[in-house]
Amino acid sequence: MALRYYHAEPLANSLKSMIPLVEKGLAYESIYVDLHKFEQHSDWFTAINPEGQVPVLDHDGTIVTHTTVINEYLEDVFPDAQPASGPLRPRDPAGAARMRYWNKFVDEHVMNYVSMHGWHRLVRVIASAIEDDRFEELMSHVPLPDQRRKWMTARSGFEQKDLDHATGKITYALDKIEAHLGENAWLAGDSYGLADINFYAHCGLMVDRMFPDLRVNETRPNIAAWRDAIGDRPAVKQALASEDRTQPGLRTWSGDGRE
Amino acid sequence: MALRYYHAEPLANSLKSMIPLVEKGLAYESIYVDLHKFEQHSDWFTAINPEGQVPVLDHDGTIVTHTTVINEYLEDVFPDAQPASGPLRPRDPAGAARMRYWNKFVDEHVMNYVSMHGWHRLVRVIASAIEDDRFEELMSHVPLPDQRRKWMTARSGFEQKDLDHATGKITYALDKIEAHLGENAWLAGDSYGLADINFYAHCGLMVDRMFPDLRVNETRPNIAAWRDAIGDRPAVKQALASEDRTQPGLRTWSGDGRE
Repeated sequence: MALRYYHAEPLANSLKSMIPLVEKGLAYESIYVDLHKFEQHSDWFTAINPEGQVPVLDHDGTIVTHTTVINEYLEDVFPDAQPASGPLRPRDPAGAARMRYWNKFVDEHVMNYVSMHGWHRLVRVIASAIEDDRFEELMSHVPLPDQRRKWMTARSGFEQKDLDHATGKITYALDKIEAHLGENAWLAGDSYGLADINFYAHCGLMVDRMFPDLRVNETRPNIAAWRDAIGDRPAVKQALASEDRTQPGLRTWSGDGRE
Repeated sequence: MALRYYHAEPLANSLKSMIPLVEKGLAYESIYVDLHKFEQHSDWFTAINPEGQVPVLDHDGTIVTHTTVINEYLEDVFPDAQPASGPLRPRDPAGAARMRYWNKFVDEHVMNYVSMHGWHRLVRVIASAIEDDRFEELMSHVPLPDQRRKWMTARSGFEQKDLDHATGKITYALDKIEAHLGENAWLAGDSYGLADINFYAHCGLMVDRMFPDLRVNETRPNIAAWRDAIGDRPAVKQALASEDRTQPGLRTWSGDGRE
């Protein structure tokens, strides 16, 4: 059985399916897709994923896209490859439902809002440095209309009211999850799993760095402790150590980037 | 094993989990929640679902919310209760991944856009007929901030640019699914299942009635044939025959309502 994982820097979507691969101890071929060179829109890559987005899992020719779908697929195909802490998808239907409730919450109410701030700080800088003709040519290779729109908005700048709305959604999510972690060790209940990995990769990992004004460490101690416990896991450390070609000053999500 | 299903009219979310219950032949207690009386925000209902939204599945005290999550839960708990056409969630991991890809597409790129038009035509009429004090009092019982915002926007009227954007998203989805159904009998591949039910309940069932300008029957024959095949299923007929208290002139989604 051969697994290939096409991914970019270890954060957000690319991190979200990399952590389960490592946690489950699955051998996989790592193929780095260089977003700084727009490889995700290149012919070789859109031949694999016509939507032109990372990450992609190729399992003996079966192509799976979208991280929430990839992570369920890995549970379906490799149910017995699990970390010592327990299965990443709870085996009881009620636990799996709790996991899916939180996955849906992160996918629909967190991911795009953190992403907007990341694009505002990182992609805006990259996109606005490109000359008009070259930018138009690049956009002609972006398969998804929504993604094209996002690039164009990043170039001209997101509106302050949209950024504020995004911050409001993130604050709401943090408060909701802080309260939940006051009564549950992990998002889906008793053990670490896919829902935790989802919120960690899209928000928990970088929220304190990206939104210092929210003072997460001081005001959300449950989230801070939960984030540190995840960060201490060897599989998470290993995933986070994978390649990062983002220019150091622009590491909005992954390191020292600041608004 | 006792199943209770709290739901409103048989369309959109409420229909989406009702069809699987009937298709699987599961006996369940049907509890109608009257949205026209704002029962979804009442104390008795928010004690069951603190988010104040229908539908809800209660399985011997296990409460499951969000239709995509409910439908996976039913597959996890009752894997062998299946219609003759085949399992609603494909048993092979690649098929399940295809089903989840389309579920995610409908949940994130279709549902809210049809819903906006429905709210614009139905909820706006209801909300704008309520006096200020009473409206404010009603809003104080809506648990989710996003839902409160939607009510207030429905009352003041959605902006034309947002309605146009929604129509654009629906058109994109119809074109994508029309092309897909040209090469596949059903959304996830060879057999009818949860992804079909999702798109049918949120869009396929009422798209021609709600958006006559899109001329779906004339321009998207694959979708029209697919929709008719679903509508012919006895389980779907049975679900659609359940109670509808919407005032006849306002049946935007379910019948004769027109802009």
